[in-house]
Amino acid sequence: MEAAVPHRNSLKLRRLGIDTYQHHVVFMRSDCHICRSEGFSVQSRVQVRLGAKTIIATVNVVHSDLFARGEGSLSESAWRALGAHEGDEMLLSHAAPVESLSHLRGKVYGKPLDDASMLEIVRDITAGRYSDLHLSAFITACAGNHLDLDETVALTRAMVAVGERLSWDEAQIMDKHCVGGLPGNRTTPIVVAIVAAFGLTIPKTSSRAITSPAGTADTMETLAPVNLDARAMRRVVEREGGCIVWGGGAGLSPADDALVRVERPLELDSEGQLVASVLSKKAAAGSTHVVVDMPVGPTAKVRSSAAAEFLCGRFEATGRALGLSVRVIVTDGIQPVGRGIGPALEARDVLAVLRGEAGAPPDLRERALLLAGHVLELSARVPAGIGQKEATAILEDGRAWRKFEAICEAQGGMREPGRASNTDWICATRAGCVMAIDNRRLARAAKLAGAPKASAAGVEFLAPIGTLVEEGQPLFVLHAEAHGELHYALDYVNNQPDIVAIGEPR
Amino acid sequence: MEAAVPHRNSLKLRRLGIDTYQHHVVFMRSDCHICRSEGFSVQSRVQVRLGAKTIIATVNVVHSDLFARGEGSLSESAWRALGAHEGDEMLLSHAAPVESLSHLRGKVYGKPLDDASMLEIVRDITAGRYSDLHLSAFITACAGNHLDLDETVALTRAMVAVGERLSWDEAQIMDKHCVGGLPGNRTTPIVVAIVAAFGLTIPKTSSRAITSPAGTADTMETLAPVNLDARAMRRVVEREGGCIVWGGGAGLSPADDALVRVERPLELDSEGQLVASVLSKKAAAGSTHVVVDMPVGPTAKVRSSAAAEFLCGRFEATGRALGLSVRVIVTDGIQPVGRGIGPALEARDVLAVLRGEAGAPPDLRERALLLAGHVLELSARVPAGIGQKEATAILEDGRAWRKFEAICEAQGGMREPGRASNTDWICATRAGCVMAIDNRRLARAAKLAGAPKASAAGVEFLAPIGTLVEEGQPLFVLHAEAHGELHYALDYVNNQPDIVAIGEPR
Repeated sequence: MEAAVPHRNSLKLRRLGIDTYQHHVVFMRSDCHICRSEGFSVQSRVQVRLGAKTIIATVNVVHSDLFARGEGSLSESAWRALGAHEGDEMLLSHAAPVESLSHLRGKVYGKPLDDASMLEIVRDITAGRYSDLHLSAFITACAGNHLDLDETVALTRAMVAVGERLSWDEAQIMDKHCVGGLPGNRTTPIVVAIVAAFGLTIPKTSSRAITSPAGTADTMETLAPVNLDARAMRRVVEREGGCIVWGGGAGLSPADDALVRVERPLELDSEGQLVASVLSKKAAAGSTHVVVDMPVGPTAKVRSSAAAEFLCGRFEATGRALGLSVRVIVTDGIQPVGRGIGPALEARDVLAVLRGEAGAPPDLRERALLLAGHVLELSARVPAGIGQKEATAILEDGRAWRKFEAICEAQGGMREPGRASNTDWICATRAGCVMAIDNRRLARAAKLAGAPKASAAGVEFLAPIGTLVEEGQPLFVLHAEAHGELHYALDYVNNQPDIVAIGEPR
Repeated sequence: MEAAVPHRNSLKLRRLGIDTYQHHVVFMRSDCHICRSEGFSVQSRVQVRLGAKTIIATVNVVHSDLFARGEGSLSESAWRALGAHEGDEMLLSHAAPVESLSHLRGKVYGKPLDDASMLEIVRDITAGRYSDLHLSAFITACAGNHLDLDETVALTRAMVAVGERLSWDEAQIMDKHCVGGLPGNRTTPIVVAIVAAFGLTIPKTSSRAITSPAGTADTMETLAPVNLDARAMRRVVEREGGCIVWGGGAGLSPADDALVRVERPLELDSEGQLVASVLSKKAAAGSTHVVVDMPVGPTAKVRSSAAAEFLCGRFEATGRALGLSVRVIVTDGIQPVGRGIGPALEARDVLAVLRGEAGAPPDLRERALLLAGHVLELSARVPAGIGQKEATAILEDGRAWRKFEAICEAQGGMREPGRASNTDWICATRAGCVMAIDNRRLARAAKLAGAPKASAAGVEFLAPIGTLVEEGQPLFVLHAEAHGELHYALDYVNNQPDIVAIGEPR
């Protein structure tokens, strides 16, 4: 429902340049005539109109002469969303009540969300009608396993419905996805290169990190532009058969981006939202066949085989409801993959594998070949049991590397990942054998060092399980772009002596 | 854990006067050396120190010349919390990770909160370490009936533990509370006046509205100051035997105020938090005997007798665990009480009853006498069955009114509630008999008209169930301080024709 209230209340825009992240804020003087006549005050949710565009924003009141009477301002995100210019007149009115919040409240009180309610909620989220508080409540209400299969399907469908949707000429559109939680597990660029080099179509959209030190989009961005719109993405795929772009830039499943922004500081994951997030992007990207990599380990995102089995079932059933062929591959998730943890550090591992360098991390290479093999087999263009062999041939003879270079060029040009200017070694305090790795705390150290925002920051991991180490031998290296972040990560690591557990060799 | 990071990063304070409500924000230039060296960016949570005081704040980055290099600013709430002055040097460092968030995450994933975890969470909330997103997640995770009895007791104890605690010389300290949800049910000032006039001690702390158009503190504030600290409150009680003050001003259960601030825009209620909120304030205020008024009706906060029974059990069991004698009185909650809905309008009803005016709302009077009678009986100074008769005598002979005047004077002086300048009638569209009232939508209309922030705003309700009305006869009157709010409430009411349902007389 749109408010039928007359909105003849205008303020002249003055840019203050205040960045509140993606939370839209409108700044108004406390003695503003509109505040008085409309009853606006701090935290009021108001509708802001500029030309044909409208947004909902939260009021912050200014008790000083930052701008004159008759003037107002917007946070940078709101300024951009409205395409504002200095001196424009913005029109303010009460925001209509957000009706879908009653469905959210019902869910909190135990009433399942049906298709129509879910669509209303997702539509309001996409339109920016939910404040950060509402988004946080929605995420919390859906977190853990609070969404059943029907709700998961409903959420997935709703997330597809509110965004752009790509369609392709080919009948088969391949895709792969990792549910995450395992630092350094950056197989996507390698898999895409192999599958595209084989001749299949794989228009891969990836996300940025939610709770991890790097998402595939963050890593890929250190190698080539990833912020492509749907048209640019299509050009790349038509030319090369594959791409690795940020999903948010293509307008696919835009609700997911709004949710991710709030999930990040909350560090809450949800099985239902995980499935919906992954499969809505696949469906919106026009994919038909999807291989899901699900690492399982005591400190990975999926911790037990029981949890993995449950999640596999959810993925496959939701896929069926959406008309997707989904194959879930459960992989070993007990320790990081490759050496790098953090965007640029992971990109270096990817390059080493694609280039066939002698020192390339063998575990990353093996995992990429396993997954690429499954993608080839799922297409039915390679017989079952032969996929991995085929993938290996494509990697070894350089076709994958050439394809990867071509994709980077098509996306806007290949570049070298950066290097951090601050590093410090974390060394073994005793001799022995590496027995276990706490992936979560290792990832936390990488994040404290600045990843993923500081793209060269993170952890270089040198001691996989089974390594025999001497006292004083480096276990991992912290990389940071800022001095303060290096110290902060060091501080954390020094208080967490068991991130790499060393025991007696067996 | 406090961060052991050196914080030699200082910025000179420049006051911008930006009011972000109680959400602490620190404003820093995007080219600030601290941002760069510490890796701060938008949405970072940082520790701000000024002298001996520290707070946690969220970073907003400024991309303009609002202030010079080497300067920074704070939102008004942060400015006040630190007692800042123009030109002071604030020290910035990374906020230590908030460890109790792992307990919150555990709860979201289904793990109950034990005493220690709950205390850590409540302590962090009180210290301002939770962002609004975290508070919203905590409220959502506890909403509905998601807290069991042990968790409810743990939350109540934790909320008592982190705040001030009053103690009194008297062995018996009486109290009453209404769980709310019934517009206009403003018995507290009358009950306190009667009980104090009888000679018992009743130091009443009340809350402001959470999801309703008025809390008792909002209503009382239109009659006398309510923002008293613990010392001022004690003076009033020692002199008059009773008071009616805002609980937040006395520092009792400060966590509750932080939660209420975020609950309000979410409009989420929680049984466990309701019990903890009420009983923590009672325990902290030193109360020993508490009568709880629980209105039950299809559109009240408690909707069924099953829900009421459950909540009664929770109140009494939690009370026992805290050493309180709690008696819950289930009352009729099918329609508003009295005529006023909104702070000043309800205050007028209270005055009419206390003054014994001919037109005083009889339903409000009856309820107040019922509850006052139970308080007198719970003290055991009046035999069972005689309480209401005793209360009636105290009201009728003017002792209650004189006591109320004396309490108002002691709290800082009695005043007249304001009158709204904009009103409009809502009239019956047909003749018939009033069959039902939608309390929730009626309360919503009062809120849209500006209540409780605009104290004179709200609804004057003229048509209780059973009233025979002609077409065109007024059913209720909207009162608003601002023209825009009146229109907004009218707009809502015009789209909700069944707020007062009219049918054939039986």
